[in-house]
Amino acid sequence: MPVLLSLSLICFWSDFSALDNAKLVDLTHAFSEKTLYWPTAKGFQLNEDFKGTTDNGFYYEANSFSAAEHGGTHLDAPIHFAADTWTCDQIPIQKLMGTAVVIDVRKQCKGNRDYQVQIGDFKNWEKQHGQMPKDAIVLLRTGNGKHWPDAEKYLGTAERGPQAVPKLHFPGLHPEAAAWLVAERHIDAIGLDTPSIDYGQSQLFETHQILFAANIPAFENVANLDQLPPKGAYIIALPMKIQAGSGGPLRIIALLP
Amino acid sequence: MPVLLSLSLICFWSDFSALDNAKLVDLTHAFSEKTLYWPTAKGFQLNEDFKGTTDNGFYYEANSFSAAEHGGTHLDAPIHFAADTWTCDQIPIQKLMGTAVVIDVRKQCKGNRDYQVQIGDFKNWEKQHGQMPKDAIVLLRTGNGKHWPDAEKYLGTAERGPQAVPKLHFPGLHPEAAAWLVAERHIDAIGLDTPSIDYGQSQLFETHQILFAANIPAFENVANLDQLPPKGAYIIALPMKIQAGSGGPLRIIALLP
Ligand SMILES: [Zn+2]
Ligand SMILES: [Zn+2]
Repeated sequence: MPVLLSLSLICFWSDFSALDNAKLVDLTHAFSEKTLYWPTAKGFQLNEDFKGTTDNGFYYEANSFSAAEHGGTHLDAPIHFAADTWTCDQIPIQKLMGTAVVIDVRKQCKGNRDYQVQIGDFKNWEKQHGQMPKDAIVLLRTGNGKHWPDAEKYLGTAERGPQAVPKLHFPGLHPEAAAWLVAERHIDAIGLDTPSIDYGQSQLFETHQILFAANIPAFENVANLDQLPPKGAYIIALPMKIQAGSGGPLRIIALLP
Repeated sequence: MPVLLSLSLICFWSDFSALDNAKLVDLTHAFSEKTLYWPTAKGFQLNEDFKGTTDNGFYYEANSFSAAEHGGTHLDAPIHFAADTWTCDQIPIQKLMGTAVVIDVRKQCKGNRDYQVQIGDFKNWEKQHGQMPKDAIVLLRTGNGKHWPDAEKYLGTAERGPQAVPKLHFPGLHPEAAAWLVAERHIDAIGLDTPSIDYGQSQLFETHQILFAANIPAFENVANLDQLPPKGAYIIALPMKIQAGSGGPLRIIALLP
């Protein structure tokens, strides 16, 4: 195994071009007027500035856009819920790249929209696949992703505004499991196929607080988790670099083994 | 050489974790109120929605933002200047990843803000480093990047509005050199450290038209090109996935050999 590893390193350094042949999966929902946002957040708007043939005879299209940071497939920077941590632009890129650990909790979430991923779910994965590698990116596959972009099914309510917030129902990560990850494992980041790393009924967002105090960013509304194996994929997640941002649009891809 | 290559492929497939140790360079300018845009385009605005301690006692920050697609470090999708080509979300990710070919034309641009990169500049690179690899990402290092974000120096004018457009002065790629790349080489994408792949004085944007008709995207306002070697780096450029967008914010990084 050490021989294989060092061979791999040697080969890799000599030639990145193998990346050209990697099988890729785009784990990103496109931004459009259908993109889902928190009931109290401003949605995505694309404004057509020009589209057609100009006076000079050539074809031209250009747009402007606006949105809240936290909607669609996006990054939560630690500063979103923890003072004096990394803003969006401050997160080292290395923390946004890593080996995927895909935790399949679809069965647990079936019939329980309020499921919170447990320490036991991580331990079950480790029983089958060995301890999570250092600097992994943990992805929770709750099955909620298949409802995108149906707000009623995906968020638990299609209503907008503050009165809709208590009606949110979707799975998340239990604060105890977040604390276990922070204390017992060394992960780079965590993502899932729901709008928030805390479950829909959360009021104190303790999972956000615990992860972010440890400078572990979150990826929310991640797409296409059904296309990843439980282990062996590699994640590259590059957010729009918003200076002092608390998060923002994220393009997240997987390289398949 | 074929033996080395297949070794590299074999090793690579078995283990992506070597990526965790790659040296990275962020080629992206952060988005802020200082970010440079075309004189006629809407600049970047970040609006603070909340920042501080909530009634529930936890810390919280969140923002909204707005901008034109074409400003800061960004992608030009082919549709920007060529009908019936790829929109931002349609570009295959594989086209946004590739071996970097860094063309240093700082000398040619010195004292000539209107320099247009020539076929000869590519041929000079190839004389030293061999033919550009297939699916390369060509990066033009004009030296203009060192002026960011000083509008007067970087764009040629700090004025805003349509009357400022004729005052734009910065280097670009000559249409003949663009046509040569399309006809004679097979590249994935092209980028540079100026606001536009056509030079500042262009009126017909022929280089845009030629590249984009061939579905070759462009990366503009690329940062930190001084940190790349002429060959051997590997580029990963992931744009915000704007459905039907003509371009958008780009996070672009390099893996160093
Ligand atoms: Zn968020
Ligand atoms: Zn552009």
